[in-house]
Amino acid sequence: MRAELLAAHPDVDAILITDLVNVRYLSGFTGSNGAVLVWADPGNGDLISTDGRYTVQVGEQAGDVRLVSGRDVAAALLNEAHNGGARRIAIEADAVSLAQYTALREGFDTLELVASRGLVEGLREVKDDDEVAAIAAACAAADAGLAAIIAAGELVPGRTERQVARALEWAMFAHGAAAVAFETIVAAGANSAVPHHRPTDAVLCHGDFVKIDFGAVVDGYHSDMTRTFVLGTASGWQCDVYDLVSAAAAAGREAARAGAELAAVDAAARAVIDAGGHGADFVHGLGHGVGLQIHEAPSVGSTATGTLRSGAVVTVEPGVYLPGRGGVRIEDTVVVSEGPCRILTATDRAFTVLG
Amino acid sequence: MRAELLAAHPDVDAILITDLVNVRYLSGFTGSNGAVLVWADPGNGDLISTDGRYTVQVGEQAGDVRLVSGRDVAAALLNEAHNGGARRIAIEADAVSLAQYTALREGFDTLELVASRGLVEGLREVKDDDEVAAIAAACAAADAGLAAIIAAGELVPGRTERQVARALEWAMFAHGAAAVAFETIVAAGANSAVPHHRPTDAVLCHGDFVKIDFGAVVDGYHSDMTRTFVLGTASGWQCDVYDLVSAAAAAGREAARAGAELAAVDAAARAVIDAGGHGADFVHGLGHGVGLQIHEAPSVGSTATGTLRSGAVVTVEPGVYLPGRGGVRIEDTVVVSEGPCRILTATDRAFTVLG
Repeated sequence: MRAELLAAHPDVDAILITDLVNVRYLSGFTGSNGAVLVWADPGNGDLISTDGRYTVQVGEQAGDVRLVSGRDVAAALLNEAHNGGARRIAIEADAVSLAQYTALREGFDTLELVASRGLVEGLREVKDDDEVAAIAAACAAADAGLAAIIAAGELVPGRTERQVARALEWAMFAHGAAAVAFETIVAAGANSAVPHHRPTDAVLCHGDFVKIDFGAVVDGYHSDMTRTFVLGTASGWQCDVYDLVSAAAAAGREAARAGAELAAVDAAARAVIDAGGHGADFVHGLGHGVGLQIHEAPSVGSTATGTLRSGAVVTVEPGVYLPGRGGVRIEDTVVVSEGPCRILTATDRAFTVLG
Repeated sequence: MRAELLAAHPDVDAILITDLVNVRYLSGFTGSNGAVLVWADPGNGDLISTDGRYTVQVGEQAGDVRLVSGRDVAAALLNEAHNGGARRIAIEADAVSLAQYTALREGFDTLELVASRGLVEGLREVKDDDEVAAIAAACAAADAGLAAIIAAGELVPGRTERQVARALEWAMFAHGAAAVAFETIVAAGANSAVPHHRPTDAVLCHGDFVKIDFGAVVDGYHSDMTRTFVLGTASGWQCDVYDLVSAAAAAGREAARAGAELAAVDAAARAVIDAGGHGADFVHGLGHGVGLQIHEAPSVGSTATGTLRSGAVVTVEPGVYLPGRGGVRIEDTVVVSEGPCRILTATDRAFTVLG
């Protein structure tokens, strides 16, 4: 991993990692204050820093890395780097704030701080087998949770969005989730036209679209899935919108192969919705990477650059939103390979009228 | 609010707010991508920016502010500022990353970007009545949740840390929480010596300390409370440690008055623990502000500068941690005033042996 990290910056003496998710990825440490210093010279021992709250935890999670205690973890590690003879240090330009950068530059005026971007995020984009297994387990917990609340009769007219969201989250915990991946979205009726609606006390009604976007976390890895149902009886426009989004999702999944241009994958789904006359109602990108974060690289959208890599785990989630009426999104989490993608989210995605 | 925001920077034409919590505080908008531009000249209409996913939501939450749609919300607002004749714009140095700053500076080379710190955080430090009411409601949901799981016999030998954590979170939802404030900490036996332990499948045993640190969210505002129990039978050292932390907590709450130096409030509690011979085992600061974030200004620690302000809501949470044996933390969320603080977390804080 040292070689890959340093490939973009062969001229630095060390890399300072301060993004907490990247710290976790590299070291296993999950505390809320931490940083890692990776030396270019493998003969130097790498360092981790955190404060007194996490002394025991860091020993358990990253006991093989030498600990430098400190509240200001970046300064503590730069001090060690300076004492170890470093002159040029790469820092994470997306994780270091302007204020922190200013303070570090003033505090360590003999060090040259080199702004870098996406070093660890690039490594994280391709998942290994253990990571895919954790995401698959998170997807399974989400699938099982949704099935459980449907079987229990929770997803019916008369319940509120909030009740359904809480029941679903509880069911995910009962089926193996360590946490929820994000605040569960349950959006009924016209609320389903709001892509990121937060659940309210709105009551589910006969004939409503109910859009549910949710996920679980297992071993730190996230799942992400959206299903949209109709309660009781579907009307013609609901069938039409659903069929269109369903066809777009299938086209997106089909296009999601190793080597495909990210923008082309988005375009494959978007072309279906455009052809159906709803291009203006698909107001977001097709998908995003999923892993230690619910949103991570790569972004699969119309302005994205680069290609899908084998082993990437991404969502495919086209949607059509008709303000005041309702909306449909169908989202799956998939693993990219040379052939057809492997779909980790197993809940049936056919048009489903409940009850 | 415009006047207070601009007091520190009377020479700028506008302030760009990109910290999402600050965006929410100023505008009410809760989406995951947004920024606000506050003009110095009240005759100019303030602006908010978000992307297509949130068009409906931003209209509902911040419909009185003019919307500038864009994916790169900071750039979208700086473009408007430039077109509106602005020359000097204050930016949030703690919210803008080095990478973002570099891109904005290159993209808007006619604008002078002035680094500012803590502008909105300073306003947020003093809560108004509605904010205190929301925090009090969050504290009440947490109190009720904990009482419910104790009454239901969930906090007994044989349960796992994880089971207790999930039951408590579920009980908070049932008692009015919209979300949990952070991942609930349930730490049994020797795990209670880890200040920020994450719940595991460790089984609660007779004679264990069980330390529970948890909170609820209501209307976006957080609560924070820790209680430490003993299961079954307490031993002498457990009583001693508990009494010491209890005395320190009382001293801290007593010292938490408007005008008190933040470091002096920490010192009031720390002196008690020092005198008890456990100074080295109190490895964190005494407390922190609580509001739209679980940790916000002011920080109440030994190196903090400044004073407590009337209307601030802070935690008082001394702890003593004995690695390998166990630890005690007693934490309350309190409202600061000229007189004694108002304690919002109501669960009994006397030494309690359960079962």
